[in-house]
Amino acid sequence: MKVINKKGAITVPRGFKAAGVHCGIKGKRTLDVALIFSEKKARAAAVFTTNKVKAWPVLIGQKHLLAPFHRAIIVNSGNANCSNGVKNKEKVKKICQLLARLLNIKGYEIFPSSTGVIGRDFPHKKVTSCIPLLIKKLSRTKGHEAAQAILTTDTKTKEATVSFSIGGKTATLSVMAKGAGMLHPNMATMLIFMTTDVNISKQLLKEALKIVTTRTFNMINVDNDMSTNDTLLILANGAAGNICIKKKGKDFFHFLKALGMISYYIAKEIVRDGEGVTKVCEIHIQGAHNTDQAKQAARALADSMLFKTALHGADPNWGRIVAALGAQKKLKCDFTGLTIMVGRYPVLKKGKPYSHNLKNARAELKKKEVHFTIDLACGKAYADCITSDLTKKYIEINAKYTT
Amino acid sequence: MKVINKKGAITVPRGFKAAGVHCGIKGKRTLDVALIFSEKKARAAAVFTTNKVKAWPVLIGQKHLLAPFHRAIIVNSGNANCSNGVKNKEKVKKICQLLARLLNIKGYEIFPSSTGVIGRDFPHKKVTSCIPLLIKKLSRTKGHEAAQAILTTDTKTKEATVSFSIGGKTATLSVMAKGAGMLHPNMATMLIFMTTDVNISKQLLKEALKIVTTRTFNMINVDNDMSTNDTLLILANGAAGNICIKKKGKDFFHFLKALGMISYYIAKEIVRDGEGVTKVCEIHIQGAHNTDQAKQAARALADSMLFKTALHGADPNWGRIVAALGAQKKLKCDFTGLTIMVGRYPVLKKGKPYSHNLKNARAELKKKEVHFTIDLACGKAYADCITSDLTKKYIEINAKYTT
Repeated sequence: MKVINKKGAITVPRGFKAAGVHCGIKGKRTLDVALIFSEKKARAAAVFTTNKVKAWPVLIGQKHLLAPFHRAIIVNSGNANCSNGVKNKEKVKKICQLLARLLNIKGYEIFPSSTGVIGRDFPHKKVTSCIPLLIKKLSRTKGHEAAQAILTTDTKTKEATVSFSIGGKTATLSVMAKGAGMLHPNMATMLIFMTTDVNISKQLLKEALKIVTTRTFNMINVDNDMSTNDTLLILANGAAGNICIKKKGKDFFHFLKALGMISYYIAKEIVRDGEGVTKVCEIHIQGAHNTDQAKQAARALADSMLFKTALHGADPNWGRIVAALGAQKKLKCDFTGLTIMVGRYPVLKKGKPYSHNLKNARAELKKKEVHFTIDLACGKAYADCITSDLTKKYIEINAKYTT
Repeated sequence: MKVINKKGAITVPRGFKAAGVHCGIKGKRTLDVALIFSEKKARAAAVFTTNKVKAWPVLIGQKHLLAPFHRAIIVNSGNANCSNGVKNKEKVKKICQLLARLLNIKGYEIFPSSTGVIGRDFPHKKVTSCIPLLIKKLSRTKGHEAAQAILTTDTKTKEATVSFSIGGKTATLSVMAKGAGMLHPNMATMLIFMTTDVNISKQLLKEALKIVTTRTFNMINVDNDMSTNDTLLILANGAAGNICIKKKGKDFFHFLKALGMISYYIAKEIVRDGEGVTKVCEIHIQGAHNTDQAKQAARALADSMLFKTALHGADPNWGRIVAALGAQKKLKCDFTGLTIMVGRYPVLKKGKPYSHNLKNARAELKKKEVHFTIDLACGKAYADCITSDLTKKYIEINAKYTT
């Protein structure tokens, strides 16, 4: 089982078609609407934003999720369709109605999704007028265009595929994603769409997605807060022909492994393509009281502007780590036995500075991928998270996003 | 009553002397040790960092604070004397012992304080060897040199004085401060030293400092977390000759007003001189359920990298404000009646976008001082906080602090 960075990934699993077109929300003929279609009825599971302010397509998607089967996902970039008055909710319904009629499916079998600027009227006529073209273009080879159409400040598409065998059948799981602009996605949108031909019950699909999200997308997701539009959605259409996975046996765990691998891969790709990011940093916390405490410690660093800038400057300023951890009121730890390792070099070991390692630590920090291991010496629990450096380019991109 | 930006402020109140010298912790003959001395016994109150990792001088200062009277404050910059092994605690004691002997006071009448890099051995001999010179230089005119000696990445000293009458006597309150490097002082050090000739009981001095801190220094202090060295210290020597303030009457509230004014002024100056800051932003939250909720909303914005970069780019991207507020799980509000004003221009009024004001909002955002008023429409409570923009210069300064 291996994750392959594959263009057009979303249409690799059997029975899925996709298309991406330019409908005019964005300028310069940029692709801005994507459609994913399953030829067979698919079971769906989703994780939506926990933000109290939710975009209209998210509110409608939450309702549609209650249906037993689904057939399509329509996504636009360039407008978040959020905080812009209730009349814009009706526009989403109109899009679903038209799409349903032309595809000969039900409106509730469709997931609408949007990303872009908040607070602007949604130009739904641009979308509806290009729906016939979108449907016409639906193809087993247009997955890459769909992946392009959902991007905002991303510099490239994020696509991947993993194949695995289940009950003697070969199954495939694919993903297309758009990045959160920054590490801390409580104010940037992360859209992740997955397709798989595995045959699995809706309940177990939901459980698998939840388990994996906690360990991957939520660990690049400081504070567990999300934007107004964040959506992680998976469609499983059963075209692989395996016997339906209905219990947590070998097949389930095989699927879970594939889902976990592809999710970790995409989570890291999202961080790597974050706004202005030049390096990715994996933080492993160990020796914590319990898992929650380990996660809290990991996030304290992942969220620290000083940690992220020091990472950028390859500065082994471990005092910032001590200060950031010590500032966490809920962290039950006295930090006297703290160990901090950059790569395999301890710069602080059981509370004692290892100054002779600073040169090696600096060399590690200059790499494109940096690994920190931090032992709190308070217990046996651990957690991992992924963060990025904070750069001037980030400021440049974000200082003038709407203008 | 008016705050005056006065050089050498710390020695304006009667009975206070100060000095600042170069002892060699920093290079290039930069002033790096300061001494403040009260000719009379002074009552003290202090707020120390809430970080679980505390620098040695903070731990010793907390103990010394238990004494009824104090006489001196010694502060160095360039080395935080933190997370560097217990032998460095002894060094602080030695400094206090020598200073006490030469000034003919008690060791516990001295507050030691440090700021700078964490995790390095403390070069106490550099400090002790210059103590005789520091004492020799003590003067009623050297306050400005003391203010210079405590700076780290600050671009200028932060000093101010306010005069007021109490019980027929003219009293003075002065301050010298070094800024937190950034808005979020949980990882940068903020040192604030105040001198006053008011005669006030130790208990009421403590209460006044607490009340004022909540409304000023803690509202530039996102999350109420602090660095390993943060210290706010006031010495009141009674030299003004007023009858000792022992109850919360007219005199107390007069002193409280002066303390509040000078603290708000200095808090704003600290933000203004934050690393790479080009503009200061006051956020007024109203219509909140209660004060805690108002504070939480204010901090959600003050702490948002996207808000701070949009501020920098003068980008009236109010969707980021909606998303940042909505992401606060503990904020009891549905945001349907939200109003957002930039200066006097609403860009969102009772949940409705006011696009025609975006041009005026952009003009407001281009000013050096920006005011946001946000009405949550959920209640009657309010809170204020001060934040800054996030700039490329910030990244530049912080990417290579220790190197």
